[in-house]
Amino acid sequence: MIIVMNPNAAQSAIDRVSAEIERMGAKPHLSRGTSRTVIGAVGEEAALDQNHLASLDGVEKVVPIMKPYKLASREFHEEDGIVEIGGGNVPKVKIGGTHAMSIAGPCAVEDEAMLNKIARIVRDAGATVLRGGAFKPRTSPYSFQGHGEEALKWMRSCGDELGMPICTEVMDTRQVDLIERYTDAFQIGARNMQNFDLLREVGKTRKPVLLKRGLAATVKDWLLSAEYILSQGNRGVIMCERGIKTFEDSARYSMDITSVPILKQLSHLPVIVDPSHCCGKRDWVPAVACAGMAAGAHGVIIEVHYCPSEAQCDGPQALLPEVFKELMGQLRQIAGIFGKEFADAGTLV
Amino acid sequence: MIIVMNPNAAQSAIDRVSAEIERMGAKPHLSRGTSRTVIGAVGEEAALDQNHLASLDGVEKVVPIMKPYKLASREFHEEDGIVEIGGGNVPKVKIGGTHAMSIAGPCAVEDEAMLNKIARIVRDAGATVLRGGAFKPRTSPYSFQGHGEEALKWMRSCGDELGMPICTEVMDTRQVDLIERYTDAFQIGARNMQNFDLLREVGKTRKPVLLKRGLAATVKDWLLSAEYILSQGNRGVIMCERGIKTFEDSARYSMDITSVPILKQLSHLPVIVDPSHCCGKRDWVPAVACAGMAAGAHGVIIEVHYCPSEAQCDGPQALLPEVFKELMGQLRQIAGIFGKEFADAGTLV
Amino acid sequence: MIIVMNPNAAQSAIDRVSAEIERMGAKPHLSRGTSRTVIGAVGEEAALDQNHLASLDGVEKVVPIMKPYKLASREFHEEDGIVEIGGGNVPKVKIGGTHAMSIAGPCAVEDEAMLNKIARIVRDAGATVLRGGAFKPRTSPYSFQGHGEEALKWMRSCGDELGMPICTEVMDTRQVDLIERYTDAFQIGARNMQNFDLLREVGKTRKPVLLKRGLAATVKDWLLSAEYILSQGNRGVIMCERGIKTFEDSARYSMDITSVPILKQLSHLPVIVDPSHCCGKRDWVPAVACAGMAAGAHGVIIEVHYCPSEAQCDGPQALLPEVFKELMGQLRQIAGIFGKEFADAGTLV
Amino acid sequence: MIIVMNPNAAQSAIDRVSAEIERMGAKPHLSRGTSRTVIGAVGEEAALDQNHLASLDGVEKVVPIMKPYKLASREFHEEDGIVEIGGGNVPKVKIGGTHAMSIAGPCAVEDEAMLNKIARIVRDAGATVLRGGAFKPRTSPYSFQGHGEEALKWMRSCGDELGMPICTEVMDTRQVDLIERYTDAFQIGARNMQNFDLLREVGKTRKPVLLKRGLAATVKDWLLSAEYILSQGNRGVIMCERGIKTFEDSARYSMDITSVPILKQLSHLPVIVDPSHCCGKRDWVPAVACAGMAAGAHGVIIEVHYCPSEAQCDGPQALLPEVFKELMGQLRQIAGIFGKEFADAGTLV
Repeated sequence: MIIVMNPNAAQSAIDRVSAEIERMGAKPHLSRGTSRTVIGAVGEEAALDQNHLASLDGVEKVVPIMKPYKLASREFHEEDGIVEIGGGNVPKVKIGGTHAMSIAGPCAVEDEAMLNKIARIVRDAGATVLRGGAFKPRTSPYSFQGHGEEALKWMRSCGDELGMPICTEVMDTRQVDLIERYTDAFQIGARNMQNFDLLREVGKTRKPVLLKRGLAATVKDWLLSAEYILSQGNRGVIMCERGIKTFEDSARYSMDITSVPILKQLSHLPVIVDPSHCCGKRDWVPAVACAGMAAGAHGVIIEVHYCPSEAQCDGPQALLPEVFKELMGQLRQIAGIFGKEFADAGTLV
Repeated sequence: MIIVMNPNAAQSAIDRVSAEIERMGAKPHLSRGTSRTVIGAVGEEAALDQNHLASLDGVEKVVPIMKPYKLASREFHEEDGIVEIGGGNVPKVKIGGTHAMSIAGPCAVEDEAMLNKIARIVRDAGATVLRGGAFKPRTSPYSFQGHGEEALKWMRSCGDELGMPICTEVMDTRQVDLIERYTDAFQIGARNMQNFDLLREVGKTRKPVLLKRGLAATVKDWLLSAEYILSQGNRGVIMCERGIKTFEDSARYSMDITSVPILKQLSHLPVIVDPSHCCGKRDWVPAVACAGMAAGAHGVIIEVHYCPSEAQCDGPQALLPEVFKELMGQLRQIAGIFGKEFADAGTLV
Repeated sequence: MIIVMNPNAAQSAIDRVSAEIERMGAKPHLSRGTSRTVIGAVGEEAALDQNHLASLDGVEKVVPIMKPYKLASREFHEEDGIVEIGGGNVPKVKIGGTHAMSIAGPCAVEDEAMLNKIARIVRDAGATVLRGGAFKPRTSPYSFQGHGEEALKWMRSCGDELGMPICTEVMDTRQVDLIERYTDAFQIGARNMQNFDLLREVGKTRKPVLLKRGLAATVKDWLLSAEYILSQGNRGVIMCERGIKTFEDSARYSMDITSVPILKQLSHLPVIVDPSHCCGKRDWVPAVACAGMAAGAHGVIIEVHYCPSEAQCDGPQALLPEVFKELMGQLRQIAGIFGKEFADAGTLV
Repeated sequence: MIIVMNPNAAQSAIDRVSAEIERMGAKPHLSRGTSRTVIGAVGEEAALDQNHLASLDGVEKVVPIMKPYKLASREFHEEDGIVEIGGGNVPKVKIGGTHAMSIAGPCAVEDEAMLNKIARIVRDAGATVLRGGAFKPRTSPYSFQGHGEEALKWMRSCGDELGMPICTEVMDTRQVDLIERYTDAFQIGARNMQNFDLLREVGKTRKPVLLKRGLAATVKDWLLSAEYILSQGNRGVIMCERGIKTFEDSARYSMDITSVPILKQLSHLPVIVDPSHCCGKRDWVPAVACAGMAAGAHGVIIEVHYCPSEAQCDGPQALLPEVFKELMGQLRQIAGIFGKEFADAGTLV
């Protein structure tokens, strides 16, 4: 950690900072420049309290050198991490390293028949994990909020029948136990990325967690949220870039494609992209999905509907079956250019 | 609601949209322009499903005309709303309309002595509501997370002794009952603004809720979150602007000062500003607090510490007692220019 | 254009709006809803003054239906546009439709030898257009500002010798004539995207213009800037997405990858991506370049240096020769998946 | 400057960085931590090439310690700067330190009669400098572009007659000489804040320059643009905060109110706010103007029109005369709270 003093900081202020650094177990190294004194604190950075040092008299700013996360860091875990979803009645799907794949299904589970129909469509096109919302986060209290446990049951039996692991969103700490009984993987939505109690609760389970990036979260914030889960002992975190909030208003959010290589450099955790929620309009979804794979993502999560105008939720962004199928072929080719194998139902059996 | 068709939309697509509008109970009005057909849906907009219409063939975009929130809207409640915090052992403090006030205290409640000391300082300077964190949302799992129920007890007894209502943050649906037993007002933090289950739970209580704006939330999103609380029957919502996430990195967040007059035009709900979390550095807090009052806010929430370098949380942004006192005088004068009365302990007795 | 009236707008205000619409040559269509009157103006939207209508009493908002640009619009020009760079002493390179290619070279032209060396490297790897800065826009007045006309001469003779068209930045209306004498294509930098006088001046020439997107420009703003050039009779506009300014600070800017399919839907103009300036760090450049091609771009513009630590400008983002060569192979493969032919020096001869 | 090495940087890489620091005339100070080596470069930071160091092998990041601007810095000029506008036929108006004031007038100068009428209105309400656009930057090439030199003549004769200095926008290097002959102060618009040639040209004159902040410019970028002007010998720079581009779309831009105290801490240059362009809608302009003064600004620039619906440009944001007059009274009272004197025509005579 580096402490930059004000140009006019008194010697007593410099001494105080040095003393505090020693008190915290590190060693201060002073560099007196022409106009400023800079103090390096050498030692275990985690033991240093950045806020405390920034609050001392005469301090202009404090610059941390180490990353604030550990378990999520590639420095801690040099090899690519590989997460497995599934097991038991359904095959295990690998994600990470050279293992790429896709998660697909409807936005919300509206009824059992539509779920089964869409699940077959996406499996036949090559998706290996089934998604579907049982509890839906909606910006308006007057919108459809999901079918809850009933939808979880439909998901489970559909996944078992088709041999697809399932993934569904958890929104509230009180739902964790219930959802854990049914699902193969939890999804944490963008708006809950810093719902720290929820992160801790899913961290206590041993089911993989798909952690969507918050709309205003930096890559660092996002990795710190992963750290919450990892620190509880759950190592199955999959990062999901789904667009950030910017001034551009043509699409709902702006896919931060550069975050894919940045995340892979900083962390060993697998990363996928969600073009559906980012775009909000199906026309642009295939292009953004392909961009994600070409940027190095380990997969995509995509919403599909055979009749989007009947969807109770986010119909405008759902891909039609034939477009999804064509896209899967393109994703497989792109993965191949970069030495990744793109899983499909056939690969798993 | 207005449906703009593609330039080359077929007549059958136009007919389908019109039929759907009628099916939902509204009347379609067609305007055929030189290059596009535009269909107005006249009737109860709440009954119209925007997503459904946007998903139909040939539709370029759907433009809603009505606001998506009702109870939070000034159209629904023309007079300024006035919320009361307190009652029982402590006086009631009014906020809204011509009633302005300040909420102050430490960021986190670290121990009982420091809480009592800071509470006296802020009350003597003119603050009427005491803030303090018992459960702390922290971006890192390794940071201090608050003293929980013990801190709530200290808060309650301190508030009762000094005659100050108290306000503290709730982060998890499972904490609502516990916190309700102690506090006079709930605070919902920025990162939980779209934790919809939490909004619903505090909406079921009858204690006022200070709803901080999310870091990536538009004013519309923020009012929809207020609507979640209001729709459960709790009418005591106070909006708190605390800065949004932008590219500017000198301060932690950018205080969106324009949101104050915009919110007051759209809604009857009282609005305050939080300059402490927005700035992240005490040097700029008084200027931003004064800006908030001059923009028409009904008050401020400010963190104060007698020795910020000892604070366990957010020390760099805590105001020193003498600076807070001077600021309170300035805020009172600014409130006076705009015909508002700024409450202090004397006014309440 | 649609005019939404306030809920309590007087009949006289509605009449005034209708009269103004008629005065401007369009027809007003009234829809009286339960709480609001909405007036559609049917006719030539370009003839309607949105600001004027928005200023009238009782108007809540004005919603335009048509795009504000014409010549840049796909409605005006349905087929993909194809722009040619070069001619005379150098071959012509096509860009747009199924024609993809890459522009590469140093950030700034530092001396003739380094330019010649880098030009050979990028040509041998498959780049077809040579880039290089003679006049450099720098945020600090104390940074290297470019070698001016001398650098233009080196560029011209290098391009002629290697058979590569050249592209260089113009920053000031007073430089247009000078640069036109040397270059095959103009580049307008992000900070000048709304330097309207400059847009008009390059619009008067008949050399292609690479128009970089401004850091705070929406896709609509960007197309309106293209319209400035097109409206002067120059149809050779190539759009270049180079990242927008957002809160994320790992990379210098955030590549808005979704803008690629959006732009292609709205406009016939070719679009390329600039991963070098967006990333600011070479580690992430190949991933973002590949993402751009996979999203549908017609090419990339990339900075290359054989010894980045000696570069006088933007060394950290320059690709090393062997990385650039590998990347070109990947881009060619991605282009192939989407039916595009990726030009190289061999193709042109 | 501080150079943070990668965790696994070789000794040879560390030696190379040290040698380069010495070659540039500074001294390297090594701190070897548990996982990283950090090298401080002590000496004249301006002599160090950050990009060069960042490009060397094994370097993770380079952290500058000094500000990149000098003449714009409060470290260089500790006292508040005071800029004078006017002289010759018109009185001089001071801005900066305890001198506050307002600039007002129409957006565009549409004809001589309207200019004279509005000038009288704003002068009688207390404005001391007259604004008005002769050359207008418009996002669409089809919008009204201003009356050019004729408008400058009307401005000059109106200012002379009423005893008001005038201020008008310059957009192109080729206009500098012409505008200098007429105006008392130049205005550089937000879209030209990084038009570096233009900054240099107005820097060569000795007329004050109102420098609006760019839509995507950090406070640091903005000060570097001021440095361009100052470095040419023109010390009369007035900074104007006019809102930045964010995701919030109710207002046109988001007034970054915190930038006012930040700028005053970093620089001695006077700062004013422009609520008209930021809001884009007159309803919110007075609140934002008052916020600016309460945050410590030295004044405001505001658009006024007696009949906004007839304005050829930005009518929706123009204040009505009686609202402007009331606002001026409020601004004067707020200035008084903070010990500033708010100039009016009477004060100047």
